[in-house]
Amino acid sequence: MAVVVTDIQRAAPEAVAGLAQQGVATVHEAQGRKGLMASGIRPIYRPAHIAGTAVTCNVAPGDNWMIHVAAEQCQAGDILVVAPTSPCEDGYFGDLLATSLQSRGVLGLVIDAGVRDIATLTDMGFPVWSKAVYAQGTVKETICDVNRPVLCGGMRVCPGDVIVADDDGVVVVERANAEAVLAAAQKREANEEEKRLRFANGELGLDVYNMRDRLAAKGLVYVSSADLEE
Amino acid sequence: MAVVVTDIQRAAPEAVAGLAQQGVATVHEAQGRKGLMASGIRPIYRPAHIAGTAVTCNVAPGDNWMIHVAAEQCQAGDILVVAPTSPCEDGYFGDLLATSLQSRGVLGLVIDAGVRDIATLTDMGFPVWSKAVYAQGTVKETICDVNRPVLCGGMRVCPGDVIVADDDGVVVVERANAEAVLAAAQKREANEEEKRLRFANGELGLDVYNMRDRLAAKGLVYVSSADLEE
Amino acid sequence: MAVVVTDIQRAAPEAVAGLAQQGVATVHEAQGRKGLMASGIRPIYRPAHIAGTAVTCNVAPGDNWMIHVAAEQCQAGDILVVAPTSPCEDGYFGDLLATSLQSRGVLGLVIDAGVRDIATLTDMGFPVWSKAVYAQGTVKETICDVNRPVLCGGMRVCPGDVIVADDDGVVVVERANAEAVLAAAQKREANEEEKRLRFANGELGLDVYNMRDRLAAKGLVYVSSADLEE
Amino acid sequence: MAVVVTDIQRAAPEAVAGLAQQGVATVHEAQGRKGLMASGIRPIYRPAHIAGTAVTCNVAPGDNWMIHVAAEQCQAGDILVVAPTSPCEDGYFGDLLATSLQSRGVLGLVIDAGVRDIATLTDMGFPVWSKAVYAQGTVKETICDVNRPVLCGGMRVCPGDVIVADDDGVVVVERANAEAVLAAAQKREANEEEKRLRFANGELGLDVYNMRDRLAAKGLVYVSSADLEE
Amino acid sequence: MAVVVTDIQRAAPEAVAGLAQQGVATVHEAQGRKGLMASGIRPIYRPAHIAGTAVTCNVAPGDNWMIHVAAEQCQAGDILVVAPTSPCEDGYFGDLLATSLQSRGVLGLVIDAGVRDIATLTDMGFPVWSKAVYAQGTVKETICDVNRPVLCGGMRVCPGDVIVADDDGVVVVERANAEAVLAAAQKREANEEEKRLRFANGELGLDVYNMRDRLAAKGLVYVSSADLEE
Amino acid sequence: MAVVVTDIQRAAPEAVAGLAQQGVATVHEAQGRKGLMASGIRPIYRPAHIAGTAVTCNVAPGDNWMIHVAAEQCQAGDILVVAPTSPCEDGYFGDLLATSLQSRGVLGLVIDAGVRDIATLTDMGFPVWSKAVYAQGTVKETICDVNRPVLCGGMRVCPGDVIVADDDGVVVVERANAEAVLAAAQKREANEEEKRLRFANGELGLDVYNMRDRLAAKGLVYVSSADLEE
Repeated sequence: MAVVVTDIQRAAPEAVAGLAQQGVATVHEAQGRKGLMASGIRPIYRPAHIAGTAVTCNVAPGDNWMIHVAAEQCQAGDILVVAPTSPCEDGYFGDLLATSLQSRGVLGLVIDAGVRDIATLTDMGFPVWSKAVYAQGTVKETICDVNRPVLCGGMRVCPGDVIVADDDGVVVVERANAEAVLAAAQKREANEEEKRLRFANGELGLDVYNMRDRLAAKGLVYVSSADLEE
Repeated sequence: MAVVVTDIQRAAPEAVAGLAQQGVATVHEAQGRKGLMASGIRPIYRPAHIAGTAVTCNVAPGDNWMIHVAAEQCQAGDILVVAPTSPCEDGYFGDLLATSLQSRGVLGLVIDAGVRDIATLTDMGFPVWSKAVYAQGTVKETICDVNRPVLCGGMRVCPGDVIVADDDGVVVVERANAEAVLAAAQKREANEEEKRLRFANGELGLDVYNMRDRLAAKGLVYVSSADLEE
Repeated sequence: MAVVVTDIQRAAPEAVAGLAQQGVATVHEAQGRKGLMASGIRPIYRPAHIAGTAVTCNVAPGDNWMIHVAAEQCQAGDILVVAPTSPCEDGYFGDLLATSLQSRGVLGLVIDAGVRDIATLTDMGFPVWSKAVYAQGTVKETICDVNRPVLCGGMRVCPGDVIVADDDGVVVVERANAEAVLAAAQKREANEEEKRLRFANGELGLDVYNMRDRLAAKGLVYVSSADLEE
Repeated sequence: MAVVVTDIQRAAPEAVAGLAQQGVATVHEAQGRKGLMASGIRPIYRPAHIAGTAVTCNVAPGDNWMIHVAAEQCQAGDILVVAPTSPCEDGYFGDLLATSLQSRGVLGLVIDAGVRDIATLTDMGFPVWSKAVYAQGTVKETICDVNRPVLCGGMRVCPGDVIVADDDGVVVVERANAEAVLAAAQKREANEEEKRLRFANGELGLDVYNMRDRLAAKGLVYVSSADLEE
Repeated sequence: MAVVVTDIQRAAPEAVAGLAQQGVATVHEAQGRKGLMASGIRPIYRPAHIAGTAVTCNVAPGDNWMIHVAAEQCQAGDILVVAPTSPCEDGYFGDLLATSLQSRGVLGLVIDAGVRDIATLTDMGFPVWSKAVYAQGTVKETICDVNRPVLCGGMRVCPGDVIVADDDGVVVVERANAEAVLAAAQKREANEEEKRLRFANGELGLDVYNMRDRLAAKGLVYVSSADLEE
Repeated sequence: MAVVVTDIQRAAPEAVAGLAQQGVATVHEAQGRKGLMASGIRPIYRPAHIAGTAVTCNVAPGDNWMIHVAAEQCQAGDILVVAPTSPCEDGYFGDLLATSLQSRGVLGLVIDAGVRDIATLTDMGFPVWSKAVYAQGTVKETICDVNRPVLCGGMRVCPGDVIVADDDGVVVVERANAEAVLAAAQKREANEEEKRLRFANGELGLDVYNMRDRLAAKGLVYVSSADLEE
């Protein structure tokens, strides 16, 4: 038996819209360095930058049947998150499924497996973050859950969570934390903007962050090469 | 001792020309999901899409001598397929060899090893699918066979087979099957075009492929989140 | 305790300028196939091609503090080379540090770890060669040496050495050898240019390099497929 | 800030004792093929087979400080589960920490990172499942949480969950499900024992599981080699 | 559709018995350095050393159904060779299937995927060479061919071929070549035995193989450290 | 051209003898966490523990010729360190070469490549630390340097340096530092022995190392689960 949850709660649209303006690195920092998917989940084309609400889907290895089931649960502004129940790099997803999802307003796909037809997906502007590019096809024999928590890229994703994905990778924000993380990210971004100006003007991080005393206290010593013998 | 076979039979040009219009994923499906090289064989630039007849070449690890021998066996419309006799990621191939092959009308290179000078190869428009990009040079000391079956990307390639390569990877079509696979691919492509329109209009795969009854028979259940306790 | 060497000697500017005209593969060959970093150190965008003098920096795993210290030691024409003291793929470096380095005239970064904010780095035209792209942040707790020899991409880099980096990867030229390697590279390049013309005109490597006799002596035999039984 | 939870609830001792009699593969099947850590988490010696209750601990990359904090939270029958906040293979754990844990009755360690002193650990009979063996030492600078949920080997582990580990790997059983999973595992094991006898007597799975009709319905055909042409 | 070939021809028993006395490295050399599986295919316990005739079996990713079908085609002296149709590390095979195969006289398993219950397999003395140890279970939904050529560990294996497996890995000897390869291996082994004595007596390979002149001709020079400046 | 240095200086025998009593982890700590080879260099059997003086040798990929040259430079108490000039996992070394080295009193081999005949090497008690076990043979065509600095497992090894290798891996001690590192290691070991007793008696690292105040200062807080809401 497997279940499809049909009435998931999604993060607030305003929070998602706000997070879409923030990069993955900023959001990751803003929520205390949590929720970042493994570095092996990479975009098929660059640049790409989206934020949306997760519809989640498990699939059996080599079997993409449940992606068709999940598609029906997707609505505009969603990002489909697909995780195989054991590691697999098959091409679960191609241009037909992308056409289907795009027609429903789905913003992109995050999949801890392979994808194919990437030239067409690139032309369509349908971004995918995946573990592999692989033309290997799949069967349709085994059912799994849709809209239940999944583990994707080493991270737990619940339906309705916010997914932010850009050239750096993918970060998950828990639904309940979306507003708080957005506020923290915006504050951080503002703070960074000010620092960026100082750095652009030639100030050093050593001074911008007042590091010199703490470095000296740790024992950092400046020497000339003449002081070193070897 | 090593041999160079000088009079290989190539797949029919019409079949190759037809297969050049088909993507790797489609051809792979059309021939029963066989012949796909490992996902680690990736194009050095994108987009790239070629189909041609294989000239095959084994090389010793760290030794690219036989590529020069193989070059002489190549003719217009060929794709050179190079496989080391044990795993190696050295840069066997660079811009001089590409110039040589391009002057003979060779369409591209598939190599289960490394390649270098990729900026120049990109500027030349000479596509390569390789396991690595690596500037490490090679020697010229050991002979191997040319135009004998090789194992490349985990697949067996015979001289004269059709190679189709695009952004998704590389697929091998046995020479004798080229026409049949082309026919199956064209049929599949036509079928997909019709489906693409239905998907673009918002129809779901669940309905396009009549999956609902079979999913229910397997035990798939639709629930509301209120039905789940955890 | 850790030290920062403040008065490193850099390779001669003329040699660096000359090496900037040469590709990594050429320089690697010209210095006897030494100094090439592992193939896993890849550029974040392409094309990219720089040569500069190394400022070197060790960092603790998950700790980017010393990059701020190293920044102060950098001057125009330098390339910062960062190596963690044990393997780590965290995102040690992002757009703020790049802004800081770029304001000082630093040409790029080579890091045997991860990097983030790559969309911004790409827009800024600040090239990075790294082992990973990963948004994972770092702490500032542990001190390490700056401008001492480091091991990066499997290669030893001393401060003041020349780093040449392009789409093929990264090569290190020892400071004392810069002029000699440049001369050898230029000679090699001139020699290659002449060969490129011959190849473009359809001459084969077999003849350009006079390989036929040596191949025959090794036992290479040309056969027709009829000669083979299998 | 980081927290140490000092009063975690542990799975019932009877359930843990029962699960200690079951192999990882059986438990994994019995709970619906969930909770299995990635295959890269391997025992440092074989055979090894334990089950216990999880004390969980995050650590910064290259920093094993929190393992000392977690040790105090461990009691007899526990298994310490350590997860770095970003991927790291340093040797976080050696014979001194093992001596400390063993003196408290801790059964073993599961760590998504490296371990060292494995010859001594083997002599002591203190089993470890780890991602790497690596002598690289760590610092003590950064605090993290103890007894909060962690992601280890791609799986979520909560404090008090049951960990079963043997030569096949590591599986996590949620605390609340321990009794139910034990019952299912025992039933499965009994069932397998009966099947083992039939297999030992030469019966085939085709008959033991009544597969022949379903295979034929799927289209499986038995042929002689004479029927095949190729 | 999928087929099971029921009347495969096996290599001559005398040749197989002879090859069982030879190590993988020797056999690999004796047949011209061909047929060696990838180094990732490793024994689950050591020492282990078998030779037998291949029964071949494809399986879908995450689906071990066909192993049950293949079991019926096995007879005493066979080795079962299992290859997934796309990369997968699931635990396709455990103690029940091993009991079944062992009761039929099957000597061992070679699988380009995962295996489980390895503690029991070790106790039973049923050797397995696999890509992974992983408790992840599989389904029984998809049919594939039995006793057709497969690609396992990067090598093509035909039913009836000889498989030799030991602590060094796995090598495939084509059925038609079994006697010739055995003869070459025995000759090589005899030759090595004589050399082993000379080496044990302190003679150097330089003299045993008469390498000194050829090395000097290549340009090898003996120097004292005083001759080197750096 | 390539050179063989015939009169290398070796570390003092007393220092080497002393280091042979110390584990790799201890030595690595004692010299300031430097010199540890990559974790991928693993022993072919366990337990194994040796220390000796390095004779170094580069080899071309797939070519073991220089190992024969290096053998002549080895004397009792040496460890041969072999590094390919580009990454390769071929089986460069087997039982014949081991017999040769063992007859000269060589203690073992460290190789950043593959090894074969490991069952025999295990029986002989000739330990090897390698990157791979692979039966793939090599040729004898290309010369390289012997007793010049090499990069092995990511570390620089000079001839005469001390190599310590055990189940945890391999560490390099520069010749000039051997006595100092030995003294530091012995001091550390003595210190650890005292701590081991305290740990065995149930004392915690928190108290043995006086960590509690510093943890509190960093912000570590002890809470009961009731204090946490989520």
